Amino acid sequence: MQIVNNIIVFLGFAPLHFRFRPRASRAKLLACASIGRYRIFENTPMPLHRDAILLTPGPLTTSLRTKLAMLRDWGSWDADFIAVTASVRKSLLDIVHGQDSHVVVPLQGSGTFSVEAAVGTVVPRDGHVLVLDNGAYCKRAAKLSSLMGRRTTVLPFDDAQAVSPMALEAALQADASISHVLMIHCETGAGVLNPLQAVADVCARHAKGLIVDAMSSFGALPIDARTTRFDALIAASGKCLEGVPGMGFVLLHKQILPACEGNSQSLAMDLFDQHAYMEKTRQWRFTPPTHVLVALQEAIAQFIEEGGQSARLARYQANCDTLLRGMAALGFVPFLPPDIQAPIIVTFHAPADRAYDFKKFYDAAKRHGFILYPGKLTQIETFRVGCIGAIGTVEMAQAVHAVALAMQDLGIAHGAPASAP
Amino acid sequence: MQIVNNIIVFLGFAPLHFRFRPRASRAKLLACASIGRYRIFENTPMPLHRDAILLTPGPLTTSLRTKLAMLRDWGSWDADFIAVTASVRKSLLDIVHGQDSHVVVPLQGSGTFSVEAAVGTVVPRDGHVLVLDNGAYCKRAAKLSSLMGRRTTVLPFDDAQAVSPMALEAALQADASISHVLMIHCETGAGVLNPLQAVADVCARHAKGLIVDAMSSFGALPIDARTTRFDALIAASGKCLEGVPGMGFVLLHKQILPACEGNSQSLAMDLFDQHAYMEKTRQWRFTPPTHVLVALQEAIAQFIEEGGQSARLARYQANCDTLLRGMAALGFVPFLPPDIQAPIIVTFHAPADRAYDFKKFYDAAKRHGFILYPGKLTQIETFRVGCIGAIGTVEMAQAVHAVALAMQDLGIAHGAPASAP
Repeated sequence: MQIVNNIIVFLGFAPLHFRFRPRASRAKLLACASIGRYRIFENTPMPLHRDAILLTPGPLTTSLRTKLAMLRDWGSWDADFIAVTASVRKSLLDIVHGQDSHVVVPLQGSGTFSVEAAVGTVVPRDGHVLVLDNGAYCKRAAKLSSLMGRRTTVLPFDDAQAVSPMALEAALQADASISHVLMIHCETGAGVLNPLQAVADVCARHAKGLIVDAMSSFGALPIDARTTRFDALIAASGKCLEGVPGMGFVLLHKQILPACEGNSQSLAMDLFDQHAYMEKTRQWRFTPPTHVLVALQEAIAQFIEEGGQSARLARYQANCDTLLRGMAALGFVPFLPPDIQAPIIVTFHAPADRAYDFKKFYDAAKRHGFILYPGKLTQIETFRVGCIGAIGTVEMAQAVHAVALAMQDLGIAHGAPASAP
Repeated sequence: MQIVNNIIVFLGFAPLHFRFRPRASRAKLLACASIGRYRIFENTPMPLHRDAILLTPGPLTTSLRTKLAMLRDWGSWDADFIAVTASVRKSLLDIVHGQDSHVVVPLQGSGTFSVEAAVGTVVPRDGHVLVLDNGAYCKRAAKLSSLMGRRTTVLPFDDAQAVSPMALEAALQADASISHVLMIHCETGAGVLNPLQAVADVCARHAKGLIVDAMSSFGALPIDARTTRFDALIAASGKCLEGVPGMGFVLLHKQILPACEGNSQSLAMDLFDQHAYMEKTRQWRFTPPTHVLVALQEAIAQFIEEGGQSARLARYQANCDTLLRGMAALGFVPFLPPDIQAPIIVTFHAPADRAYDFKKFYDAAKRHGFILYPGKLTQIETFRVGCIGAIGTVEMAQAVHAVALAMQDLGIAHGAPASAP
């Protein structure tokens, strides 16, 4: 054991020289670690147990190794950081086999910033966007498109159904003015897996641009740019690649790139400009989220070591199966039929038991170590449980057990909804 | 010494079970630390020395304590994270005494995203923005304003001068259609400190809206919302508050807030919408950069412990003085006269010595432990050195020494420029 600097940090939650501080309130225990001349976490409430596991579809639980990558500072202009940017960009193309057909443009902000940037950059100002809508995130995409002044039409589907390539076919035949189609690969509002390949085939046949929000599928579900034609595909750092949140990225087809110049009304979110500058200088135009990018590089390294997309899908599928099996045993009923349930996030009907209240249920599950996610459907009461992040079936089984304990705590006898579908 | 989890990390650069890897190239030594079943930094090149100190105006060198705050994952919907958001928002208002007059709206992305969001939210679509331009970042602000379709007029000043309140007065008298004035408090293109109070007074007298880009001054230079009237003031996490980059924030005057509704053509960057949602739910509208925000909270705690803005200014001023004195002894001449030199970043004339080449100079200084910053002036050759970050006069003296060593390495006899001003 070799120690050069006298700085030692104990992860987990037993910092060196741990002590309670008398002035700490009961509600907010403050932990203090003295490390040489540093005092660490003086003002951050530190739990005396393992942090709750996030069963939320981003931010999610990341590996220790990913977080540790953030313990260094990087100059955004420096060659070392430029190499990180290049490495991440290459990896992102590799994951969907897009090296020959696409470029990748990283962008600061959350995934929604990248969706807005993609629409604003790819769709000309007189373009017409058709949004295939089967959930809350589709409605958000339609809203940002129309706010930017792009003519926007919504093709509505039920939240509990996948979007229909046949309905898309009919819509394109009925209105030749549609220039672009926008779809969400995995609609996490309910958790539906939409038929990317079939939608892409219809768009290709009609020579329409396709913008794919692959936020919650990229890295986990198969996407192959060699066989699936898309103009733009969007995802983010803090989803199935298991990085931390803070940046998104957009794959743009090389053939459409020249026509994108001047489309954007936004300087910050102009992906054409971002790409041109990055190609010229290898740098980001504006200050990049350096720590987030370095964490993403480390997360991608683990993704590759795990075995890439197929291995990640297998783990998430096992997580999802463990969850569905365990929750079924407690009486819970999933909102979606199995054939369109993506192994990313599962929506469950709220139990009919009168002792159920989401807030109390959430707090109880959290006391037992797991963070659930509220439902996003407007018509019926549901809650959601994510299957993604640096967790496996062990944690999912623990999560089901935590739900069982939460039910006990609240006196919920059974998880069944009022009327099983 | 209490150990609960068997995970131990040695910061500094001597990870546990450190070993050289035979396949590592000379250029890129790979370090590997085995920690239980984790392998850490397998794919990240790890230096065998202290990381170079960033003399760049954001990203900058942050404290270990700030970075360590990023070692946990947070659910963005969870009460614990909501409390972090509330705490940071309150602190940001406190720093400029804006509790009574302003609200604060955090935003994902780099500082430029927040500048664009402020202009797009505050200025109505038929508004007219006058940009007081004495540098590269002013030009960027004018560009984003006109891209969004806002009528934009530039009032040009020399890069080596502060903007003139008298010239502003004349411009406002000459054109009554101007609705808003945009100024940059500290223009880091050259490093000029602009006269915020005098500009604000002119705007108040003419009843014009004022948008202040305080990116590189917030927290270090005095700003008092009780005596300085502004509609919007913008800064970011990774500047003088010494957080990591990844989010900005905008202080909006409460009186103008209602009129901001519907101004923005962007969903992601609509600060009115972001604020309304945050007030209602205490959450961010879209996925927040959780780790960046928690690091900012920890950075602000250290800011307060240090003694707040006046203490931070004193440290930066001492840094700047140490730098100017040391560089003068080597023959270097600063670009700006002392009376408008902000203690944030210093622009130096490039040496006339024919052995000088910025790239080589940069690389040599880096080998001696310091990351310099390129110049941003178009007419004359310069380079920049930041005075901000979690560093003091010890590091600044070391930086000057590193410059001296870099000069030796390159055979630069003297730092004086071709013609001293």
